[in-house]
Amino acid sequence: MLEHQIKNIELSLFANGTERKGEEEAWKVQPSDSAKNCRNFIREIVDNLDLEPNPEKPVIALSIGDPTVYGNLPQADETIKAVVKILEEGSCNGYAPSVGYEDSRRAVAEYLSHDGVEVDKKDVVLCSGCSSSLELCITALACANKKQNILIPRPGFPIYRTLAESIGVAVKYYNLLPEKDWEVDLYHLESQIDQYTAAIVLNNPSNPCGSVFSRKHLSDILELAYRRRIPVIADEIYEQLVFPGKKFASTASLHSQVPILICGGLAKRFLVPGWRLGWIVVHDEINAFQNIRKALVSLSQRTIGSNTLIQGALPAILRNTPQSFHDDLINTLRKHAEIAFEGLKQAKGMSPYMPEGTMYMVVEVQMNRFPKFTNGLDFVQKLMEEESVFLLPGDCFQIPGFMRIVLTVPENLLKEACSRICEFCNRNYV
Amino acid sequence: MLEHQIKNIELSLFANGTERKGEEEAWKVQPSDSAKNCRNFIREIVDNLDLEPNPEKPVIALSIGDPTVYGNLPQADETIKAVVKILEEGSCNGYAPSVGYEDSRRAVAEYLSHDGVEVDKKDVVLCSGCSSSLELCITALACANKKQNILIPRPGFPIYRTLAESIGVAVKYYNLLPEKDWEVDLYHLESQIDQYTAAIVLNNPSNPCGSVFSRKHLSDILELAYRRRIPVIADEIYEQLVFPGKKFASTASLHSQVPILICGGLAKRFLVPGWRLGWIVVHDEINAFQNIRKALVSLSQRTIGSNTLIQGALPAILRNTPQSFHDDLINTLRKHAEIAFEGLKQAKGMSPYMPEGTMYMVVEVQMNRFPKFTNGLDFVQKLMEEESVFLLPGDCFQIPGFMRIVLTVPENLLKEACSRICEFCNRNYV
Repeated sequence: MLEHQIKNIELSLFANGTERKGEEEAWKVQPSDSAKNCRNFIREIVDNLDLEPNPEKPVIALSIGDPTVYGNLPQADETIKAVVKILEEGSCNGYAPSVGYEDSRRAVAEYLSHDGVEVDKKDVVLCSGCSSSLELCITALACANKKQNILIPRPGFPIYRTLAESIGVAVKYYNLLPEKDWEVDLYHLESQIDQYTAAIVLNNPSNPCGSVFSRKHLSDILELAYRRRIPVIADEIYEQLVFPGKKFASTASLHSQVPILICGGLAKRFLVPGWRLGWIVVHDEINAFQNIRKALVSLSQRTIGSNTLIQGALPAILRNTPQSFHDDLINTLRKHAEIAFEGLKQAKGMSPYMPEGTMYMVVEVQMNRFPKFTNGLDFVQKLMEEESVFLLPGDCFQIPGFMRIVLTVPENLLKEACSRICEFCNRNYV
Repeated sequence: MLEHQIKNIELSLFANGTERKGEEEAWKVQPSDSAKNCRNFIREIVDNLDLEPNPEKPVIALSIGDPTVYGNLPQADETIKAVVKILEEGSCNGYAPSVGYEDSRRAVAEYLSHDGVEVDKKDVVLCSGCSSSLELCITALACANKKQNILIPRPGFPIYRTLAESIGVAVKYYNLLPEKDWEVDLYHLESQIDQYTAAIVLNNPSNPCGSVFSRKHLSDILELAYRRRIPVIADEIYEQLVFPGKKFASTASLHSQVPILICGGLAKRFLVPGWRLGWIVVHDEINAFQNIRKALVSLSQRTIGSNTLIQGALPAILRNTPQSFHDDLINTLRKHAEIAFEGLKQAKGMSPYMPEGTMYMVVEVQMNRFPKFTNGLDFVQKLMEEESVFLLPGDCFQIPGFMRIVLTVPENLLKEACSRICEFCNRNYV
């Protein structure tokens, strides 16, 4: 299983034989606080699980947010050919400007200019994946020396906390409301703001919730941010991965007076997370981010940006990938969401939340109906042991008692997994 | 000119129209200390120069450490084909482990296992370019909260200072001795060590000096590091770019008892700096770095490593690139070094230092013989104004009164540049 492979590979990095004792003790080099505070919260939970699958049943991992794992969701031909062309031309092997090639930044600006949004290439910084985009934004806005904090969603993806705490910036959670389609609890959000709050991180569409904010709700959030003068970091990596009937609205399209750093990239919608092509868009209609623009340029110079082959191919990828590719992906994800939703509704004690987009679904588990299991982690362990199905426990996303299901696995495996989960629940439900 | 292009592109990022005044003032968002302390020392100097070329003469830039700029040094076919193959196979588009694919790390381990060095794949972390490798190493070892410092070479490439100061870690310089082929001044190095010193950064072969340390000298440095119990970060990005008659010795080959993090990558020797494939090798014969290994894994998870296409191609690139490609590159660089050395010896007031490797040469200028020029920066400006030749002033490398010359430009341009420099010097020398 991939999670195990990764774990083993990385554990092998520090299993370095027996220790010498004695005079060499003085040499034990201690890592910096920055390294010690750089925690992988998913790994910390998963590594403490005793994940022994049932040898009778092949493992189905509904845990990994990588749409390429099973090969059932291939990249568009246009995406691959664009990079081959750049390789053959040989013009994109040297250093690019640390913020990215001008043509590539223009292409991102064009790609994101719709629904009344006008992005200019000067607003775009290319980064080595959306994680790097987030890292730059948090590092630019939040200052450890001033004891600043950022507000992040609960439930939410743990990378925001990892990035912030590693540079000494605190995080405070604001709640999303399951009963309101995972909208932000605006009262709770506002109550979390203090004099040290440097930014609010939004994630829309949401990992893990699969929710998509309405324009009205987004507008309410931005109104709050405006009133309290808190800049926003908008993680929009799942932009456009929205099912029919819902429409994605970028924070930029609201024309609020709030300065916003929008993070995105190729990873999810173009199915190439390993290529590490992310971007930051500076959306700032009131010119509040003049110094933050400079800060992003400075910080981009630390590691000199993203792979130049992908940067060179970016205009062709963004312009030439046919709408049918995007439609097919949405249709597949939507179909898988329906399969999982309908399938898991049959499982006693489980309440799936139908997602409105992304590649995830959350499921609430009535833990009190499963007295055999001490908690959600134990539930996940036993599900693996009995049915060889692996889900990430909601604990990974600060929402114990829930599970996250990845919808990108092949349809037959998804059906099989749901049916095994049903058997498991119905067998253990009291 | 590329430097100007980069400057203009990046300036455009923050030239965002006129500022609104009044009530929006409260919104002026201030960047973090980390961003403010993230300085590009070359840019700060170059941007303050008034670089107006002579319109009669085409510009020749001997300033940019990017061997791909003029197209005269193409990549090996094997390098390009390896990536095309990976693209066509379609197997390297998803997330890799944050430290890199196991096969790719094994290939780096094999590549670096020579001269009695045995590297294991567990010792290798892949990064997004050698800058990222250095960033991870400095961040893992040096702790801002403990007021730690790192020792870095003078002259030296300014990235070490940029990376350290951005995370709040101080730098202290140790001198290299021009009269001793730019060897480390060991007395000075030792005098700079204090209780807060977290690491010594070595850069061998050296940018900008073009020097290559002997085994004996490297051994003396490591002996000092051992005696004072200071770990070493060895920037070996120019490994093997060494001219006939000299031999590169990795810090790993000395079998010292010093724990060392070695940084390298594809950028220079394989002529693909834009591909951002760097590595860290943990060399630790006494098991002092057990916690540092964990720290590197943790820190690699912040941005999830390097582009997976290049990672996938890495085994083929490292194994299949023919020796003749490497030999041709060395021969060209050596020839260019001789051309520049012989050419600039003819320039009054200039003392070139024949490099032993890398793609650079330093030249000392007897500034007192050029009373028309107030300092080295003025010299560089006037050289551009009169002869349209651009050199980086030694001030960029903490060595005023010197110049750095990049040797990768085409032979005819290098000859033309040298001849213009000669005319300039001979005309202005008093």
